[in-house]
Amino acid sequence: MTHWAFNCDLVSIALLNNKLELSMSLLVCVMQRNNEKLLSRLKSLLPSVEIYEWPNCPDLGQVEFVLAWNAPDELWAQLPNLKVVQSFGAGVDGIAINLLAKQVVVTRIVDNQLADDMAQFVLAHILTHKLRIKQYLAQQQQNIWKPKRAHIGNHVGVMGLGELGKTVANKLVINDFLVSGWSASPKQLKNITTYTGQDGLNLFLADLDYLVCLLPLTKHTEGILNKSLFAQLPSHCVLINVARGQHVNDEDLLWALDNDELAGASLDVFTQEPLDNSHPFWHHPQVSITPHCAALTSVSVVCEQIAINYSALLNNESLKNVIDTSKGY
Amino acid sequence: MTHWAFNCDLVSIALLNNKLELSMSLLVCVMQRNNEKLLSRLKSLLPSVEIYEWPNCPDLGQVEFVLAWNAPDELWAQLPNLKVVQSFGAGVDGIAINLLAKQVVVTRIVDNQLADDMAQFVLAHILTHKLRIKQYLAQQQQNIWKPKRAHIGNHVGVMGLGELGKTVANKLVINDFLVSGWSASPKQLKNITTYTGQDGLNLFLADLDYLVCLLPLTKHTEGILNKSLFAQLPSHCVLINVARGQHVNDEDLLWALDNDELAGASLDVFTQEPLDNSHPFWHHPQVSITPHCAALTSVSVVCEQIAINYSALLNNESLKNVIDTSKGY
Ligand SMILES: NC(=O)c1ccc[n+]([C@@H]2O[C@H](COP(=O)([O-])OP(=O)(O)OC[C@H]3O[C@@H](n4cnc5c(N)ncnc54)[C@H](OP(=O)(O)O)[C@@H]3O)[C@@H](O)[C@H]2O)c1
Ligand SMILES: NC(=O)c1ccc[n+]([C@@H]2O[C@H](COP(=O)([O-])OP(=O)(O)OC[C@H]3O[C@@H](n4cnc5c(N)ncnc54)[C@H](OP(=O)(O)O)[C@@H]3O)[C@@H](O)[C@H]2O)c1
Repeated sequence: MTHWAFNCDLVSIALLNNKLELSMSLLVCVMQRNNEKLLSRLKSLLPSVEIYEWPNCPDLGQVEFVLAWNAPDELWAQLPNLKVVQSFGAGVDGIAINLLAKQVVVTRIVDNQLADDMAQFVLAHILTHKLRIKQYLAQQQQNIWKPKRAHIGNHVGVMGLGELGKTVANKLVINDFLVSGWSASPKQLKNITTYTGQDGLNLFLADLDYLVCLLPLTKHTEGILNKSLFAQLPSHCVLINVARGQHVNDEDLLWALDNDELAGASLDVFTQEPLDNSHPFWHHPQVSITPHCAALTSVSVVCEQIAINYSALLNNESLKNVIDTSKGY
Repeated sequence: MTHWAFNCDLVSIALLNNKLELSMSLLVCVMQRNNEKLLSRLKSLLPSVEIYEWPNCPDLGQVEFVLAWNAPDELWAQLPNLKVVQSFGAGVDGIAINLLAKQVVVTRIVDNQLADDMAQFVLAHILTHKLRIKQYLAQQQQNIWKPKRAHIGNHVGVMGLGELGKTVANKLVINDFLVSGWSASPKQLKNITTYTGQDGLNLFLADLDYLVCLLPLTKHTEGILNKSLFAQLPSHCVLINVARGQHVNDEDLLWALDNDELAGASLDVFTQEPLDNSHPFWHHPQVSITPHCAALTSVSVVCEQIAINYSALLNNESLKNVIDTSKGY
């Protein structure tokens, strides 16, 4: 289905390219990344569009559409005709929403494959703990033969029931986990007990064996994985953070692990990436680190979605994957 | 369902206990294991039955039912009235079938929970390789931050489509793997491409990303995971052996790993267990070792099944989970 939809959209991009008037340009400002492949793919999808990579743009006044990630703050005041900021990622925490004019539309990448990859990653890391895979690998290094039963707990809580959280929760349900979910607005999801807002948080946390964070990073969620939250979890609970490093208060997490308030943590994201060499997470026995690889966006999907949204803007059609700038996600 | 069925069976055991004539005894001969819990549980399920632990049995002539695992060969000739040998495990490779009189019935343990545990274990170990979990854990030890895409291959071959193999294959299907299966007799399984016998083996192996062994150990399957089989697999294939150590030719496996004929091996079972301290598997970088813990039988399930079969024998009813002694499984 997705594939068919994409093909249709690509046909409409092709048609559109024929009637494009070169009245506006697309600016790419994706920082700390080699964008060669991205630019060449975009140019092949939108051959008649002027595509520039910041800071090499002859006339910022012509720019109505920016593909951005961690752009320098001073950029935004230089774009008087800006209409759309397309995030390069699934999240929009790399977009300084507070610096944009109110009418600017912010869009993001939504990719089914990304959600499936995330679900597989979360399942794998839960099973790694449940079946003691890390423990056995460590024992192997010391020639230790010591069979143990798997950990019993099956109850997983998913914080954030958006594009990724929902897919993760469903994957866990079909794998016989008991799944609870937590979100800002109430949800009805099959086979998942859901909780909402601050009022629902205590109840949601009280009985979990695994806690998965898939919240967006906003002013309400920054530092949410802190001492007071850990105190509400059973002490054998394991944290899986695959959202953003800033969701975690690192000191509080280390304290909780060292004081038997939490049994372990699998962390894919960090406040500073790559994780600083001297960070205590690296060699903490209860922490497993992966280098922000849970779900990697494919450049070709990103480019297709940009081309589709760019065409929609030109045609005065509604854009896809628009976020609510007042909520920040 | 299973639960309900068990309850019924337990009621019939209870009724039976009332009318038992003490004409025969049950002998337990499960070697190299502390059987205290097992015996006390059996005695509580069959309070009016004489239960002995070998070699402490006053009259071997009375014994019609033996619960056995790796019993000494000389035992079998001393049991003139032997009717049933119940294996203590899911397999019967701990029973010297060739030393039993032809009319002796051999039964084994079949446990849905065991199959579910095995399926979860196999899925977890495939995902561990696919998502490079071991690689990232090793990198963590050296403060290395190096994101990589997951391995692409999704095609899993399951050798043996019995109680465990079928459950494993279905679990992989619902987790979006492409699954092929191989068995002695032809099978029709939903969403699984099946192959049969020696003729089907080459085709089955030719395109696999993961090969899972769930065969019983018989004279036909001993050493089946050898040089000539490995040569038929793609070189990026990973072996998961969760059946018996004797299925593997250890030297051939090491040769295949060292000569890029195979990418890795997750081994749960070994010819000698615990695995000998000096065995090269322990420290081979492409081998992951677990201590025969993929699916652990629970003593209470074993005891219930024994009690049910014992009652069936007394009542002249048909026994459960009888194996075909001519095939050896
Ligand atoms: N590690 C990686 O490789 C990787 C890859 C991609 C994405 N990510 C991260 O994954 C996270 C989830 O992405 P997504 O696309 O699934 O996000 P999304 O679709 O925007 O969903 C966000 C969910 O969080 C809930 N939420 C937001 N604020 C909340 C609050 N204050 N309290 C309670 N619930 C709140 C929302 O509730 P409502 O439904 O009620 O609005 C929604 O269910 C993001 O942080 C993203 O950056 C990580
Ligand atoms: N690692 C652990 O913790 C653990 C735990 C429990 C069991 N196990 C092991 O798991 C294995 C599988 O157990 P199970 O209960 O699933 O066995 P099972 O029910 O007896 O099934 C055996 C399967 O193998 C097939 N097979 C037998 N001989 C074959 C041959 N020569 N060529 C091709 N296929 C052949 C059979 O084919 P047909 O269907 O055509 O007869 C059947 O599909 C056993 O080795 C057992 O010891 C390991």
